[in-house]
Amino acid sequence: MGKALNLRSLLRAGQNINIADLDSAATPGYPGHGKPDSEELTAALGETISDWQERFYAESRLDSTPTRSILVVLQGLDTAGKGGTIRHVFGLIDPQGLKIYAFKVPTEEELSHDFLWRIRRQLPGRGMIGIFDRSHYEDVLVVRVNSLVEEEVWQARYEIINQFEAELAEAGVTIIKCFLHISPETQKDRLLQRLIDPRKHWKYSPGDVKVRRRWPDYMTAYEAVLNRCSTEVAPWYVIPSDNKWYRNWAVARLLEEHLEELAPDWPKADFNVEDEIAAVEQSLA
Amino acid sequence: MGKALNLRSLLRAGQNINIADLDSAATPGYPGHGKPDSEELTAALGETISDWQERFYAESRLDSTPTRSILVVLQGLDTAGKGGTIRHVFGLIDPQGLKIYAFKVPTEEELSHDFLWRIRRQLPGRGMIGIFDRSHYEDVLVVRVNSLVEEEVWQARYEIINQFEAELAEAGVTIIKCFLHISPETQKDRLLQRLIDPRKHWKYSPGDVKVRRRWPDYMTAYEAVLNRCSTEVAPWYVIPSDNKWYRNWAVARLLEEHLEELAPDWPKADFNVEDEIAAVEQSLA
Repeated sequence: MGKALNLRSLLRAGQNINIADLDSAATPGYPGHGKPDSEELTAALGETISDWQERFYAESRLDSTPTRSILVVLQGLDTAGKGGTIRHVFGLIDPQGLKIYAFKVPTEEELSHDFLWRIRRQLPGRGMIGIFDRSHYEDVLVVRVNSLVEEEVWQARYEIINQFEAELAEAGVTIIKCFLHISPETQKDRLLQRLIDPRKHWKYSPGDVKVRRRWPDYMTAYEAVLNRCSTEVAPWYVIPSDNKWYRNWAVARLLEEHLEELAPDWPKADFNVEDEIAAVEQSLA
Repeated sequence: MGKALNLRSLLRAGQNINIADLDSAATPGYPGHGKPDSEELTAALGETISDWQERFYAESRLDSTPTRSILVVLQGLDTAGKGGTIRHVFGLIDPQGLKIYAFKVPTEEELSHDFLWRIRRQLPGRGMIGIFDRSHYEDVLVVRVNSLVEEEVWQARYEIINQFEAELAEAGVTIIKCFLHISPETQKDRLLQRLIDPRKHWKYSPGDVKVRRRWPDYMTAYEAVLNRCSTEVAPWYVIPSDNKWYRNWAVARLLEEHLEELAPDWPKADFNVEDEIAAVEQSLA
């Protein structure tokens, strides 16, 4: 099986995106033959990622190495697969290296601060891979669609977000923003599945169908995000997500490409190895 | 292969424990034939646990269900395998359902509060499985061995800990405390491995051998923990951990037994399913 080269360039959001033009069932860069070999391909990526992740974490334990972390931002409408991606992709990695946070409706305390306050509190520490299930982008998505603040407030946020992300990148955070793109038909199927299977009832809320009815408004809001907040240091990637197996593979592959570029290495010992071997040998002798 | 029944009763700390009498290479309750089938047995437990965990999490999403969470406390000397257990056992579970926290040397802010302050801040929320890599027990282990506080202070902590854990149990927290027990020879081998393999140097610190020299003092301190803080609502389990494969299987099995007893079930829908199916069908039609 061939190896997909540079999925980043294939999935990176272009300019003046019209979401209706993007195929949510496409499988760009996929090196296999559809679903049948996807589990194997993603598991193989999981092993490579696990190895890189351990080096990335190890490197961060020494004071002499640069301060680096990774932040994966997952956005998408209900049923797009944010939770499924975390489970199937990030579930392949040592959970000690992950910091997962799901942003909900802001609390009263969170609303009493600027919209980035709660985001900053959940940023991954040194050597960690952070995963945001929803993010600061909700403040120009649900907030915009429902006019939760004045237009001049949300209009200003695109630039505030770009500055925030530039600041993070400058501070050593590699930002990987994934828009999990599904069609309205796929959402319908998945919502119905949640209703038909009693084991999935807990994932459904009557509010979901209300949000679904605002689909065109959400597309407009997502287009603004993709067109105004895909920057050189923090580009957006559009992940066609009608096929769960492709979505999982693609997010894993994007993470692998970024880790490969970061190329963390095992840190050098900052002690004398021979002396320590002797000390251990002699201890409790 | 037979199924080990009630590993809890086999591993539960007895009374008046003398750690030197406990075999750290034993494999009580193990239903297989040594290491060869351990990976398969532990993976099978992983699947059962994952299923229980999803129900446990799902159940917590509804207001009508009781507030429950699970807290796994991992304690053991260096190289006992706290990190390895998290990686290999809890790595089998959806990371979204886990809250992992590794307690380090207390910060100045933490020291300005009572010793349980930082512990309470990291407790798992509703429906979550929390994992403590070290815990409040350090305040009667490293603190006692190194006389970091007056004896009357640490002496009082055993009872404070028992009251704290009783309070948690009362509030719906299932507490699973695991002492990962290794022999001094196993520790020596593992420390030497960390020194011989350059990829493991980052796991070694010259301080480790200093702690190792205090082995008898730590055993005395651990005996006090096991003898004074193994209560009905929060017993200690002694996990023989010279064999990593047994340690992983045993911790997984203990978790499974507790989940089985908690018996979480898929929550009932708090909406009219037929109405919602119709609403989804008609939306964006």
